[in-house]
Amino acid sequence: MIVVMAAHATELQIQDVEKRIQDWGYGVHPIYGSERTVIGAVGVPEADKARYMESLESLPYVEQVIAILRPYKFASRDYRAENTDIDVKGVLIGGNQIAMMAGPCTVETYEQTWESAKACKEAGATILRGGAYKPSTSPYSFHGLGVEGLKILKDIGDKLDMRVITEVMDLRNVELVCEYADILQIGTRNMQNYDLLREVGKVKTPVMLKRGMSSKIEEWLQAAEYILLGGNPNVMLCERGIRTFETITRNTLDLSAVPAVKELTHLPVIVDPSQGTGKRSLVMALTKAAVAVGADGLIIEVHPHPEQAIKDGAQSLTCENFTQLMRELKPVAEAIGRSL
Amino acid sequence: MIVVMAAHATELQIQDVEKRIQDWGYGVHPIYGSERTVIGAVGVPEADKARYMESLESLPYVEQVIAILRPYKFASRDYRAENTDIDVKGVLIGGNQIAMMAGPCTVETYEQTWESAKACKEAGATILRGGAYKPSTSPYSFHGLGVEGLKILKDIGDKLDMRVITEVMDLRNVELVCEYADILQIGTRNMQNYDLLREVGKVKTPVMLKRGMSSKIEEWLQAAEYILLGGNPNVMLCERGIRTFETITRNTLDLSAVPAVKELTHLPVIVDPSQGTGKRSLVMALTKAAVAVGADGLIIEVHPHPEQAIKDGAQSLTCENFTQLMRELKPVAEAIGRSL
Amino acid sequence: MIVVMAAHATELQIQDVEKRIQDWGYGVHPIYGSERTVIGAVGVPEADKARYMESLESLPYVEQVIAILRPYKFASRDYRAENTDIDVKGVLIGGNQIAMMAGPCTVETYEQTWESAKACKEAGATILRGGAYKPSTSPYSFHGLGVEGLKILKDIGDKLDMRVITEVMDLRNVELVCEYADILQIGTRNMQNYDLLREVGKVKTPVMLKRGMSSKIEEWLQAAEYILLGGNPNVMLCERGIRTFETITRNTLDLSAVPAVKELTHLPVIVDPSQGTGKRSLVMALTKAAVAVGADGLIIEVHPHPEQAIKDGAQSLTCENFTQLMRELKPVAEAIGRSL
Amino acid sequence: MIVVMAAHATELQIQDVEKRIQDWGYGVHPIYGSERTVIGAVGVPEADKARYMESLESLPYVEQVIAILRPYKFASRDYRAENTDIDVKGVLIGGNQIAMMAGPCTVETYEQTWESAKACKEAGATILRGGAYKPSTSPYSFHGLGVEGLKILKDIGDKLDMRVITEVMDLRNVELVCEYADILQIGTRNMQNYDLLREVGKVKTPVMLKRGMSSKIEEWLQAAEYILLGGNPNVMLCERGIRTFETITRNTLDLSAVPAVKELTHLPVIVDPSQGTGKRSLVMALTKAAVAVGADGLIIEVHPHPEQAIKDGAQSLTCENFTQLMRELKPVAEAIGRSL
Repeated sequence: MIVVMAAHATELQIQDVEKRIQDWGYGVHPIYGSERTVIGAVGVPEADKARYMESLESLPYVEQVIAILRPYKFASRDYRAENTDIDVKGVLIGGNQIAMMAGPCTVETYEQTWESAKACKEAGATILRGGAYKPSTSPYSFHGLGVEGLKILKDIGDKLDMRVITEVMDLRNVELVCEYADILQIGTRNMQNYDLLREVGKVKTPVMLKRGMSSKIEEWLQAAEYILLGGNPNVMLCERGIRTFETITRNTLDLSAVPAVKELTHLPVIVDPSQGTGKRSLVMALTKAAVAVGADGLIIEVHPHPEQAIKDGAQSLTCENFTQLMRELKPVAEAIGRSL
Repeated sequence: MIVVMAAHATELQIQDVEKRIQDWGYGVHPIYGSERTVIGAVGVPEADKARYMESLESLPYVEQVIAILRPYKFASRDYRAENTDIDVKGVLIGGNQIAMMAGPCTVETYEQTWESAKACKEAGATILRGGAYKPSTSPYSFHGLGVEGLKILKDIGDKLDMRVITEVMDLRNVELVCEYADILQIGTRNMQNYDLLREVGKVKTPVMLKRGMSSKIEEWLQAAEYILLGGNPNVMLCERGIRTFETITRNTLDLSAVPAVKELTHLPVIVDPSQGTGKRSLVMALTKAAVAVGADGLIIEVHPHPEQAIKDGAQSLTCENFTQLMRELKPVAEAIGRSL
Repeated sequence: MIVVMAAHATELQIQDVEKRIQDWGYGVHPIYGSERTVIGAVGVPEADKARYMESLESLPYVEQVIAILRPYKFASRDYRAENTDIDVKGVLIGGNQIAMMAGPCTVETYEQTWESAKACKEAGATILRGGAYKPSTSPYSFHGLGVEGLKILKDIGDKLDMRVITEVMDLRNVELVCEYADILQIGTRNMQNYDLLREVGKVKTPVMLKRGMSSKIEEWLQAAEYILLGGNPNVMLCERGIRTFETITRNTLDLSAVPAVKELTHLPVIVDPSQGTGKRSLVMALTKAAVAVGADGLIIEVHPHPEQAIKDGAQSLTCENFTQLMRELKPVAEAIGRSL
Repeated sequence: MIVVMAAHATELQIQDVEKRIQDWGYGVHPIYGSERTVIGAVGVPEADKARYMESLESLPYVEQVIAILRPYKFASRDYRAENTDIDVKGVLIGGNQIAMMAGPCTVETYEQTWESAKACKEAGATILRGGAYKPSTSPYSFHGLGVEGLKILKDIGDKLDMRVITEVMDLRNVELVCEYADILQIGTRNMQNYDLLREVGKVKTPVMLKRGMSSKIEEWLQAAEYILLGGNPNVMLCERGIRTFETITRNTLDLSAVPAVKELTHLPVIVDPSQGTGKRSLVMALTKAAVAVGADGLIIEVHPHPEQAIKDGAQSLTCENFTQLMRELKPVAEAIGRSL
């Protein structure tokens, strides 16, 4: 880390900072500029970095302390240079083929889920999405069918040979959800629910970690680090739109984040254009853009009758929309040398 | 709710929307403007509103659907016009006296906590803050002493006749924390951890709900509604800074939110200038501003030796700082007709 | 517009609002709900809307006033349903072919500009970009060659049969820049410099209006409306990234804005992935995504020797990068039925 | 500046960076850590810094380049440690007394301006605000009376012995506005209109520079630097709310910015709670908070009949509101040792 001394720092104060760093056992490398003295501290381990940075920042004669190293290890490209592919019972995420996850926002009934899943499967999706436990801003909204929904998902997934992804919200349910699902989704509101991250770090079921709606890329990777450090290496990231001042779209889908995060990490990156835009008419265009920008997979809401959907009808594709989308998406994937 | 039809909507499409609303059992009030037809739907209950809004928005001939009513009930001034005061074992929150919560960011040792608490009490604080379970962006940081920390807090609180506020993160710990603490803090990262909100809704211990770092005021009140609806009426809100593009301050403390939220709700509002600014030198000025703007309380980090703090040293006041702050704060409180 | 009365509004207060609207000469359509009365005002012209909305909002018994109509006319799809194509001396913007604008960030020398332009032309770009007047956050940075730069651009544009786009910042220079350039660029910092918008509204030279870095889509279209209303119908929009909390990318390129804005307006939309990301390694991926999402053109910074560039070297492609990009972009354009 | 080499950088690449820095004539100080090599470059002048930072950042084996020095000089506390007070024809801005600027948003008529000004003066305001040239998001809104408005302001200012502050938008009008006004206001939309900043840098009339609605504090100070560098030392800053995701308030008034910016600069800081909140009921509370946080002055919209105002009626105080506000503000100012 780099300590920038205040403009008015005296020689004694500079020595004080140097001594503190040495007393902690780290190397000291001062650079005396004409307007500022800068002190490099070498060898500070990640586990202590935040603490020592704050300690030095709390001194009145220190202007700022700058971290040099990325605050994550197992998630970084430095740790693992090649891409990580995740094998979800035979469906590979992160390879040349783009993984298509599709299905209803919420599992409402067996029939509705079946109708959606069947159309998605026929159009080329390999992974069935569907919410059994739904986070809702309002306590008055529908919160999902719970275990009943999990059973419907598993049954339909088995029948159609689709893998199942569903959200787990309550850390007491992690084991339960693992019985029915092939991928655990951590939703945007829980990206920094560290106790939940620790629980999904204890299992081996792959985890899709959605970016918090106001999370910096660095925080997102630190959240992934929680799971990796816990012992679960099967983590994929999911960009689903960040919160900005714009109100015409529900969120601002940050497609730059896809190549940016792939420079920093070896983990696969999925894009959710349904949540990202909140509007059916935008989902098709953004799906193509997500493929073009290099996403390893997509997760898309498809409902047989969106105007009857309990949640997110406005952003759900119809089954026909999805079939058409897959048809139009194929040449885009091929144009960048990938397949659907 | 108000349905705005698309510019090109036909008479048949307008009738279709009207029929849908009537079929759901609600009143229909169309307004035919020169450029748009607008349809008012009257009588839609909160529990169904989101669903029906999305349903109509998913129609291609509907431009937008606008909610008229606030999406919370028990938290609103419409439900309860007068301010709610919360009695924390004899310490009132929400009355004329401004509640001062102070203490270390993290409980590190008995001595450190005692030293901080004693100075805070002597300066006039009535509530001891301190973290036993600490949320940390990095998995490598210190995560608190756990139960040991709770015991230290309770023991010192008892000895100094201070109430204790501390964060609960893991919903399995709610009962445990209730044994030791007088106020449960829900942190900013967990404001939309709905399972946790439901758990603290089941107890009667007062809850301080921190605003999510990218939460709109409306979402904050909906989170409060989860707790109120669960049966716990003792909810106070805490503004702690929102995430913006500015990087000189850690967060942007949104003091406008204090009077804005008090127009909408009867719940007391606390301000956290330590988290809000991330910088000791700003805490004193922002504390005065928070009192002047109408906050019902403050929660401030105080450490006997900030440069030795495990966390948040850079934003912790020293005991001397806090004593001076209380001295300077008194006339500000009196200037607006309140006391400390 | 729709006036939402406060919950506690009396019958007299409701009548007062109705009378005000009638006295202004507009139609009144009240809807009496169980919890709120809502009053529709029909026939309010755009020119008076803001004023009357504020007037009603300033009454204590009015909760909010909601605008129904879009606050722009000539820019809207309601006014003109089909896409507007702009003919820039034989190069069409908005048609099936995607317009490629490329060249150096800043005109530094004739040779540097020539080298960049020649490579861009050979790779397929038809429009030469280059800054003669440069806005710089720092007063100490280079601010461009001025007229000398304009002359270099025009000379090279003529020799290579490329159209020229360059920024105009000072409204006194509009006529001067029109002599040398085929498209006037309004930069992000000047999107709400209304006097400048009025000046470029007086000429017929096409204008590319960059989105302000914190502008909502609606404000962007209102800025376009200034130019259209002034009499210049040749306006194209340019998404160049918005300001968010993320710091790894310079800006957050809002690709959702492309299809979203094209639903609202008939004007062509260009994307600037160089400014949008600030990082060379991201420009290639985002360019493909911009094409896939439906952009009508791209504007890209290309420098023969980025590490010697005076400005924006870190986000400039080399000539070789650009040639490769064009090669890789061709199949993406074809995949969505367009050409380069 | 500090150059952080990529993790995989070779010895040759490190030498290449060192050689480049030396060739530019600056000192080189490498620090070899276990995971990264960091190179300090000493002596780089501000005028060249941005260029050289970008040059190094454009190398693939450089991870990032970090600036150490603040990118402004004349605006900084390093340049001038004591506060700058600005004497506006006998009214001091920046001293112990808090400067109160008040008056109508827009000059509509002589009578309306007189009525507002008289009430403000009687209540204790010393500076009359009022818009003669109004920036409006919509081209259809009222844009001010122009010169006629300037004449009204000057006449009333003279009669009531008030100084006059008004906005200049068009750089061709700077001299004209200087004839009538005592302080030139640069509005939020023009904070980065550098040609306008240069023009107001050429005169000696004091300038109030509003913060751009998405400007970082550092950019705001760089904008001030443009004016100071141009030769006008009489610059005051004005915080007026930044753009965030929150929609209940028009902007988010960033009161933390007041003490934060005063640590960095010697220039006085004014707060605009009217624009900052957009809502009359919040203006009173935020005005008190602005004083408590350390603002050197306030600028407040006051209209004799807000519901008849052409602009910003919803955020304008009545004359009675302002009188009451001044009465309530006095003890707050005294509580922090200042006067009104």
